[in-house]
Amino acid sequence: MKELPIGFIDSGFGGLTVLKQSLKQLPNESSIYLGDSARAPYGVRSVDEIRRFIWQMTNFLREKGIKMLVIACNTGAAAALDEIRASLAIPVVGVIHAGSRAAILTTENNKVGIIGTPATINSDSYARIIHEKNAQLQVFSKACPDFVPIVEENQMVQPETMNTVANYLAPLKNAGVDTLVLGCTHYPHLRPQIQEFMGPEVELIDSGVETINEVSALLDYFNLSRSAEDAQKMPPTHTYYTTGSGAKFARFAQMWLGQPDLYVQECKIKGEIIHEASHR
Amino acid sequence: MKELPIGFIDSGFGGLTVLKQSLKQLPNESSIYLGDSARAPYGVRSVDEIRRFIWQMTNFLREKGIKMLVIACNTGAAAALDEIRASLAIPVVGVIHAGSRAAILTTENNKVGIIGTPATINSDSYARIIHEKNAQLQVFSKACPDFVPIVEENQMVQPETMNTVANYLAPLKNAGVDTLVLGCTHYPHLRPQIQEFMGPEVELIDSGVETINEVSALLDYFNLSRSAEDAQKMPPTHTYYTTGSGAKFARFAQMWLGQPDLYVQECKIKGEIIHEASHR
Repeated sequence: MKELPIGFIDSGFGGLTVLKQSLKQLPNESSIYLGDSARAPYGVRSVDEIRRFIWQMTNFLREKGIKMLVIACNTGAAAALDEIRASLAIPVVGVIHAGSRAAILTTENNKVGIIGTPATINSDSYARIIHEKNAQLQVFSKACPDFVPIVEENQMVQPETMNTVANYLAPLKNAGVDTLVLGCTHYPHLRPQIQEFMGPEVELIDSGVETINEVSALLDYFNLSRSAEDAQKMPPTHTYYTTGSGAKFARFAQMWLGQPDLYVQECKIKGEIIHEASHR
Repeated sequence: MKELPIGFIDSGFGGLTVLKQSLKQLPNESSIYLGDSARAPYGVRSVDEIRRFIWQMTNFLREKGIKMLVIACNTGAAAALDEIRASLAIPVVGVIHAGSRAAILTTENNKVGIIGTPATINSDSYARIIHEKNAQLQVFSKACPDFVPIVEENQMVQPETMNTVANYLAPLKNAGVDTLVLGCTHYPHLRPQIQEFMGPEVELIDSGVETINEVSALLDYFNLSRSAEDAQKMPPTHTYYTTGSGAKFARFAQMWLGQPDLYVQECKIKGEIIHEASHR
């Protein structure tokens, strides 16, 4: 069991920021990543549809064999974490609880900002979880639909991007939040721009970093961690799948993870089932 | 089950820094704290003796009824966490794994310092856990036996304290660590002095903060969290026990937790069993 990889699912590339944290914090662990780029972005889809897609990806990874599942997608975790966790025998982790906990821990003025896709913000998941834990906190949420395309088109340093950032974040800055949760796995790529606009005194929470912290705690808790000695005997492997273009996914993954020789396998979706494409 | 308190055990007052984080991060949760001040400090005792004392305290809290146990004492966790966790049906959390994970996450130059009591440092628990997870990290450990008495005697701002701090920490500073784990729950009280000597660029890890983050994750994971609504219906309670002087314990707890009206019940140790003292 311990030797199995950790599974990561995401609507596309965004979850690679979470995987990157896993490579850093958990260097002995193998991973298997599936990005549903053919149907991304999820942020504008209905909850029912998102839930169906998350189940399809979960089933694909279960067949491959995983010891833990990370829903490395805020939109997907908001829609489906509870039911996937209730159904699977292995631990299932989403990005929203970890980000919410970090926000509660970090804020000193009890004013927290949340940014995410429209689906994540409409689900109200962050605010609900934060308020369940601490009803005193004020939560200010803002959907930032243009941030994902900006990141996917690598427009982070274009001058007009700073205007987009300022337009979205001005209400949160005016509200005086001292903590801002990057509630979408794409947003860490915009961290410098967001930090510049919000000012150095605002703490940015990267839900991906916090999620891997939780994964690490659960691996320890369930005695599922691979040790450095295990990794020396059998080096960890990292496998990438996408429902979209393998070449495009590989370009992103190579750049974001800094791994030039990474290979991505394509998958096909037939009915409700995701299959590995036999050859490319 | 959800309504039960979280149990905290410690050799004395030190674990109150962990409890304080719980009050901050988990304001809806009840707690029950037992400090073994009659037999503190543990840091200079044998592992077998520490293990026995931890079991006695665990049994005392189990009888009271708890939903989770926190060994809020590095020395105690190093000696007994694994066997207590293996024996209890409820989740058991120590302070060492959480601090180790935070160090791995924080360091950028792969040089980590650990300070703690002689028993914690001799157990090599931090270095072992860190190396299991990442064999590349260099770990520099230093026992600081005088820090606990300095804190318990409230000598933090005495001029000679800075000399003691400098004497202990010079080897770690010279080794160039960029991350220093406060591997004893008393040490956060010396944080300003330690930060001043190490310099602002060194990150100090408070194992207590990280531990409550893990507690929070496990409460979520096992669906054991009390919500703000639960807390409104039945406000959380906080109960304090000590094997030593209730009056002395109350003074410390009132000061450290900022709660002037806190009441502490005394316990007696008879044979291998800790009993609540009938009256005081």
